[in-house]
Order: sequence, then C-alpha cells, then structure tokens
Amino acid sequence: MAMDASAIAKPHDRLATYLADDLEAVNGLIRTKMASKHAPRIPEVTQHLVEAGGKRLRPMLTLAAARMCGYDGPFHVHLAATVEFIHTATLLHDDVVDESAQRRGRPTANLLWDNKSSVLVGDYLFSRSFQLMTETGNMEVLRILSDASATIAEGEVLQLTAAQDLATDEGIYLQVIRGKTAALFSAATEVGGVIAGAEEAQVRALFDYGDALGIAFQIVDDLLDYQGQSAATGKNVGDDFRERKLTLPVIRAVALADAEERAFWSRTIERGKQDDGDLDHALRLLAKHDALTYTKDSAIGWASKAKAALDPLPGHALKDMLLDLADYVVERIN
Amino acid sequence: MAMDASAIAKPHDRLATYLADDLEAVNGLIRTKMASKHAPRIPEVTQHLVEAGGKRLRPMLTLAAARMCGYDGPFHVHLAATVEFIHTATLLHDDVVDESAQRRGRPTANLLWDNKSSVLVGDYLFSRSFQLMTETGNMEVLRILSDASATIAEGEVLQLTAAQDLATDEGIYLQVIRGKTAALFSAATEVGGVIAGAEEAQVRALFDYGDALGIAFQIVDDLLDYQGQSAATGKNVGDDFRERKLTLPVIRAVALADAEERAFWSRTIERGKQDDGDLDHALRLLAKHDALTYTKDSAIGWASKAKAALDPLPGHALKDMLLDLADYVVERIN
Repeated sequence: MAMDASAIAKPHDRLATYLADDLEAVNGLIRTKMASKHAPRIPEVTQHLVEAGGKRLRPMLTLAAARMCGYDGPFHVHLAATVEFIHTATLLHDDVVDESAQRRGRPTANLLWDNKSSVLVGDYLFSRSFQLMTETGNMEVLRILSDASATIAEGEVLQLTAAQDLATDEGIYLQVIRGKTAALFSAATEVGGVIAGAEEAQVRALFDYGDALGIAFQIVDDLLDYQGQSAATGKNVGDDFRERKLTLPVIRAVALADAEERAFWSRTIERGKQDDGDLDHALRLLAKHDALTYTKDSAIGWASKAKAALDPLPGHALKDMLLDLADYVVERIN
Repeated sequence: MAMDASAIAKPHDRLATYLADDLEAVNGLIRTKMASKHAPRIPEVTQHLVEAGGKRLRPMLTLAAARMCGYDGPFHVHLAATVEFIHTATLLHDDVVDESAQRRGRPTANLLWDNKSSVLVGDYLFSRSFQLMTETGNMEVLRILSDASATIAEGEVLQLTAAQDLATDEGIYLQVIRGKTAALFSAATEVGGVIAGAEEAQVRALFDYGDALGIAFQIVDDLLDYQGQSAATGKNVGDDFRERKLTLPVIRAVALADAEERAFWSRTIERGKQDDGDLDHALRLLAKHDALTYTKDSAIGWASKAKAALDPLPGHALKDMLLDLADYVVERIN
C-alpha cells in the first residue's frame, strides 16, 4: 500500500512524509525564532510567509541531504530553518523592489508602511538566520551560507542592471538565476552533507545537484510566465514582459531577431513603451523562433544534470525522491 | 610636541592617529570586499557611504578595544570592517525607510531605482559582513555580532511601531536607541576584547562602555535635532518633529504635559496634522518643561556611565582616548 501511494504521490509530498518529524522540528524552531518580545509586528509580517502554505522545499533539501548522508545530530534542523529564513528575508526584500515598480505612481500610506516593515523585518530574519547557523558551531557551514547570501544579493543587484538591457545574454541570465535562486538551493543541499560529515565527493555532488535543480526551477518559472497554462502559478501571462524583465524566452528571441523584431524588443523592453497588443506580438515572436521550446529544453537539460550529479551518492529512499524531484520540477511545464 | 598636539586634538582624531596603520588596513579590506565582479553597481552605491568622509567611529572602537587588550593578530581588522559594513548596510536600509516617508506622494523613477539599489546593496554589505566575521574563525565573535544584528533589526521594527504613539515612554525609547545605535557600539567594543582573548571582566567592561557610549551618542543626536545650533549636524531643526518621531525631548514634554498640551502633541505627532507655527509652539513647550536640559543631563549621565565602565581596564593611551571620547560625545551639545 505504501509503495503504491508513494509511486503516485508527488516527490515533494513523499519527501514531506518521509521527513515529517524533522519538518515538525523545523517548524517549531521557526516559530520560536520568529517571535520577538519587543516588536510584535515581526511575527505579524512574517506569519503569512513563514507559516501558511510554504512548501518548505529548500529546508527539505537540507534535511534530505543530511539524512541521506547518515546524520543523526540535531543541527540539520537549525540549518533547514536558516535556509528558510534566508529565503523568506529575500522574498520580503523582493516585495519592496517589485512593488515599488508595479505600483509606481500610487504610493499609498499602506504601501509605504509595508515597505518599511518588509525591509526591516527582512533584516531581522536575515540576522536570525545567522544566529541559527552560528548555533551549529560548524565553521564550514557558516562559510557556505554566508557565501550563498552574498551571491544571492549580488545576483539581485546584477538583475537590476541586466534587466531592460537587450545586451543581456544567456551567460548573464545564468549568472542572475544562479544568484537569485540556485545559490540557496545548492547551499541548502551542501550544508546538509557538510553537517553530516560526508566525504568531499559527496558534498560536491550535493552542491551540484542543488545548483542544477535551482537553475532548472528558475528557468521553468520564467517559461511559465509566458506559457502560463496554470492558475497555480499565481502569475498572469506576460508579467515579466510588462515588468520588462529579460528572461530566457525573450533572450532567445532577441538572439534570433531580425532588425524589425529587434526594434520591437528595444521599444517594449528597453524603453518600456508598451501598447495593447504588444504582449500578443511578443508571444508570436517567441513562437516564431521556438523560444519556448528552447527554454523548455534548457530546463530539461539542467534537470538531467541534477540527476546525474547524484551518482556519487549511494542508494537511498531519499535519493530516489530527489531524482524524481528533478523530473517533477520540469513536469510543471506540461 | 606630540603631547601638546594630543592634548588639544579631538579624541576622535587622536584615536585615528594612534590607529593609523590599522585603519589603513581596514580601509583596504573594505575596498576589496566592496568590489563585485558581477555587479559594478554595488561599489557605485556604497562608495559615497564607505569611502568618503566616514568617521570610522565604530571600527575604531573595535581596533582600540583589541589593541588595549594587547591583541597583535590580524583579525581585529576583519572585525572592524565587519562593524563598518553592518553600519553602512543599516544606513542604506534606513534611507529606504526614511525617504519613503519624506517624499511621500513624489515617487520619482530615480527614487524607486535608488530604493531598489539601497535594499539590495544593503543586503550585499550585510552578507559581506558575515563572510568577514566568519574568516576570523572565532565562534564567540560570530555569536556577538549576529546577536547584535538581530537586536538592531528588532530595534528598527520597534521604532516603526513606537513612533507616532504618545504612549512611548523613556523605557521604550531606551530600548529603541539601544537597538538602533548602542547595540553596534557595544558589539564593536566587545568583539575587540574577545578577539584579544581578554578576561571576562574586561570584555564585560568593554561591552558596558560601548553600550553607554552609544546611548549617549544617540540621545545627543536626538537633542541636536531640536537644539540645532550647528550646521555640522546636517539636519534642520525639527526634522524629527516633522517626521513625527518620538524622541526623548518630546517624551519628556509629553510626560509633563497638561490636557491642552497633550492635545497639541496628539494632533501634531499622533495624527500628523501640522501647521505653520507648530514647531515653534513645540519648542516653547520643550522650554517650558526644561525638556532639553533634561535630555542633556541624561546624555551626560550615560557618558559618565561609559567612563566608569572602563575602570576594570589597566592604564593605556587608548583608554585615555576612549575616556575623552565619552566626554566629547556630549560636548557636541555646546
């Protein structure tokens, strides 16, 4: 019975079931560390982010990596909570960055208040994450996670400058999504191995898996923004186009554009002059150059790299789930 | 000759002279760590903050504490740079928080762009600070500095909720300024002692000195906002009043207010309805209740506590400068 159920359940849910006790400990730690004696606004702001509906994908990667490598100490829980706090802090700061642009010209008092809270509560969670990782007493995980934090911030700044610039190519795009997404995935899996005392080749394998999985995950996200068959994404088709974000589908179409098409992209993305019908025209250009297929193939390629990366690790129920997870990430497209 | 010069120079300048080599190393490290291969915007944004005119007060506290305790390793430089990065990151995020309110209703594209950069570059510096402290390999300083970061963020959030609320009393005010200012001063001096391997009583003394100095420093800042004899503060008289920030002068005047005065403060601070002449009336109420004298006495009291805290430390040229620095902080008032 268990086998049948696990064969059909999504890999994410199978991980959650397998790691249920660990996840409960992570949730308990998150609730404790989110509380603030002095500033009750903090849990107010974070509650909807940390408590409700979070898939806990990143912390599960840490827990799975540590357990696969035979860890039976307490600190994988701290590291999983650390990773979730860094993720949540990043989301809060992204809100400020994105909302400012989206609601341009409509700075309600409420928006301003939210911005303040988002910045400062994000800082609080970020600090909490460093307190949590310090509790492990493990210098190597401190190094990995502080490096990842710097890479994330650097990637976000790079995205600011790379956005709206048609010269952004696939190399820069990869750098941006490594920063904004893959760096935390790879740090999440790597520290799981490190805290378990895994040998170097296995730690490297876990890092490579997280890196490739994170890249595949973000490419799929960027694809769904244009493909958008699913209400589940919570995004409208073309949000990235309207926000003039250069992602892989458009980067590909720009690379293959003739002069007239290039002028279109320059007007809509670089200069931000968009009219009714421009999104439809953009979608036609993406179709003309098979840019969505190209993007999908790229995601599938990274998912394959993720799976191959796990070769050095011995057989384990969790390894199977991580392999399936890599497939599942790109299955979201269909 | 040296003695005569040192007798008249400001304690801050004497510290800078004494610690010149260390400060140069700190500046070099800051320049190196501020650079970003991938995101040239980062040094652009930070340059005016980190390079130009910074008094380096906080890093000097770390350097002085370490040297006083006989440290001759390399890591006080890392810690001093860490402290400066945390300070700069906080300034960048304060800009977002303050500018949003000040320029309400005028969200220029430039302002929005600056907000994005401020948030993300602040995050980058914050991450860099954690990388730097990790390089010391000293778990105790990691604990102290990550705790300080959490206290700073918590204090900033508390300030958001305490501002514009006439129920804010001196206890809450102290908590806010401990968070926003004193926490980094006390961490700066404490880690200097810890990295030097100073005994517990001396580390405690250094913490207490930094704590009291930071509190005095912030009270003076809040006093100068109303007293404002000096163009050197770079602030206009009454900025805090206009921004409806409850600081010690007003907290004192509110505590002694009759019903009519209370209604005035409620209208201007809580409800934010300010007319021409309200600042003048506020200044008259502060004078009526000797609120500025009370605030000044409070600052002098904390400066005395700072000096007394250093008792457990043996005689040292740097100790004399730190004692004078405590006096100097409140001399800014006159």
